[in-house]
Amino acid sequence: MNKLIINFTPTGMIPTKDMTPHVPVSINEIVEDVHRAYELGITMAHIHAREEESGEPTYKKEVYAEMISGIRKYAPDLVICASLSGRNFNTLEKRADVLSLEGYLKPDMGSLTLSSLNFNKVASTNAPKMIEDLAKTMKTKGIVPELEVFDVGMINFSYYLVKKDYIRPPLYYNLLFGNIACAQSNLLHTGVMLNDIPKDALVSIAGIGKCQLMMNSLAIAIGKGVRVGLEDNIWYDAERTRLATNTELIERIHVIAKANNREVMTPTEFRTTMDMEPGHGRYGRIYN
Amino acid sequence: MNKLIINFTPTGMIPTKDMTPHVPVSINEIVEDVHRAYELGITMAHIHAREEESGEPTYKKEVYAEMISGIRKYAPDLVICASLSGRNFNTLEKRADVLSLEGYLKPDMGSLTLSSLNFNKVASTNAPKMIEDLAKTMKTKGIVPELEVFDVGMINFSYYLVKKDYIRPPLYYNLLFGNIACAQSNLLHTGVMLNDIPKDALVSIAGIGKCQLMMNSLAIAIGKGVRVGLEDNIWYDAERTRLATNTELIERIHVIAKANNREVMTPTEFRTTMDMEPGHGRYGRIYN
Repeated sequence: MNKLIINFTPTGMIPTKDMTPHVPVSINEIVEDVHRAYELGITMAHIHAREEESGEPTYKKEVYAEMISGIRKYAPDLVICASLSGRNFNTLEKRADVLSLEGYLKPDMGSLTLSSLNFNKVASTNAPKMIEDLAKTMKTKGIVPELEVFDVGMINFSYYLVKKDYIRPPLYYNLLFGNIACAQSNLLHTGVMLNDIPKDALVSIAGIGKCQLMMNSLAIAIGKGVRVGLEDNIWYDAERTRLATNTELIERIHVIAKANNREVMTPTEFRTTMDMEPGHGRYGRIYN
Repeated sequence: MNKLIINFTPTGMIPTKDMTPHVPVSINEIVEDVHRAYELGITMAHIHAREEESGEPTYKKEVYAEMISGIRKYAPDLVICASLSGRNFNTLEKRADVLSLEGYLKPDMGSLTLSSLNFNKVASTNAPKMIEDLAKTMKTKGIVPELEVFDVGMINFSYYLVKKDYIRPPLYYNLLFGNIACAQSNLLHTGVMLNDIPKDALVSIAGIGKCQLMMNSLAIAIGKGVRVGLEDNIWYDAERTRLATNTELIERIHVIAKANNREVMTPTEFRTTMDMEPGHGRYGRIYN
C-alpha cells in the first residue's frame, strides 16, 4: 500500500501578515496551525521560526524549542523538520543552531538544500562545504536530512553525500518546482527528476505559487508525496482571487487523495520506513 | 548547411601551471593559443584574464584590453567573449569592468550565467539583480551575452530576461554538463535542456572534466556547437594518463567534425547569424 506523505509547510520565510492574514507567524499561531493539520491528517511539518516581535525569520533555537515543545504537546508522534535555510543568515553556527536542541526538543529532521540556486528575487547560497558540514552535524545528532531539490542536477550531489557517508539511506527528498531559474512545473522536468531519485527513496513534490495545486495533484496521481502549505503559495486559486488558509489547502489534498484511493501516511509509518522509530537506534525518538 | 560553432576556452579560472604546463596563463600565452586555434579554425574565444605576476584570476579591464588587442592583431574577425564570472569577485563594478572597454578593445560578447549554482568546490553566486544589471550594461554597450546554463531550470530565466527586454534574440547559449550539483552528462539531461532552448537560438555544448570529449562529440553528431579547451578539462584521455594541449583538443574536434561532414562556422558567419556584423547596428564591429 503506497501511502501519501503530506509534508505541511505552514509559514516559510516570505509570507507576511500584510500579504495574507492567514499565515501563522507567532509561535502560538504556528503551533495551532500544525495541530489543526495534525487532526486532519499529515505526516510531517516543515517549520520555519519567526521573531516574536518583528515577524522576521530567525534561526534561534530558543524559538524553535518553544515551537517544537508546543507541537509535541498535542501531536507527540508528528515528524518535525526544522528549516536550516541560509537565505537570511548564512553561517554554519546560525544555520545549525536548531540542531543543538536535545531530547524532547530536538527536531526529527533538518532541511538540507543540495546546491546554491536563485529564488525569484534573491540568491540562496549553499556552498558544498556548508552542505557537507550541515549533513555531518545532523548525522552526529541523529537528525535526518530532508533533501531539498530545486533543479535536476542537484540530485547528483545527494549521491556524492551518500558516497562520502555524510548522509545515509533511507533518503527523503522534497522536489520543488516553479521557481523562475529552477526546474519548471512540467512533466518533462518532473519525470527527469523522478528518474534520477534513488528507487527506494521517499519523495514529496511541491509547486511554488500557482503551480502548487497542479504539482500536488500530479504527485497524488502518480503515487508520490506532497509538500503543501502557505510557505509555497498563499492563494486558494490560480487566478489569485481568494487567499487560502493552511487548513483549506490540506483539506483539498485530502479530497484529492481520497478520490485517488491514497491513504495518508502516518508519522509512525514514515518513521518506520525512514528508520526513525525508537529502538532502531539510528535516529530520533517519539517523545511522549 | 548547419555549421559547427567552436567556442574555444583556453584558460578559465582553475587550471594552474602546477596542474598542467600547457595551460596559457600570461597574456602572451593566451594570445598565442588563441592565434594557433584561429589558424586551425574556431568561431569564437571565451577568455579569462589572469594577473601577470601571480597567475590568479583578475577582472581588470587593462589585462583584458591587452589580451583583446593581441588577439585582434592576427585574428581581426574572431568573436571574443570576455568572462564576467563572479566566482572570485562578485561586485557589479568588478564584473562589468571589461564591458567599459571601447572601440577596438571592446569584447564582442560577455558571459552571463543565468542563476546561482555550485561548482565542485565553491558556490557561484549570481543573484537575479546582478544578472539583470550585467545584461542591461551589455545591452547599452552593444555587447552580446553568452548565456551560460549549468542546469535545466536556468534556461527559464533567459525567457524572463527576454520578456523584460534585458536581452534580445538572436540568442546564443552555452550548455555546460558534468559539474557535481548541476546537469549531468547524459542524454536525458541534455535532451531536456535542448528541448527548452528557443528553436532559433545558437547552442554550444561543453562537458566538464572527463566528459568533455563525449559531450563535444555528441554535440557534433546532433548538429550543435561545441565549447572546448583547457578551461573545462586538462586531460587528453578519460583515463587521465596524458595532459592535453589546447591545440590537440581543437585538432580532435576538427577530425570528428570532418568525419561528420560538419564545417566549422566562421566568425563572420556567427556574426551574421547573431546580428553582430558591422552595419547591422545592434552590436560590435569587426575591427581591422
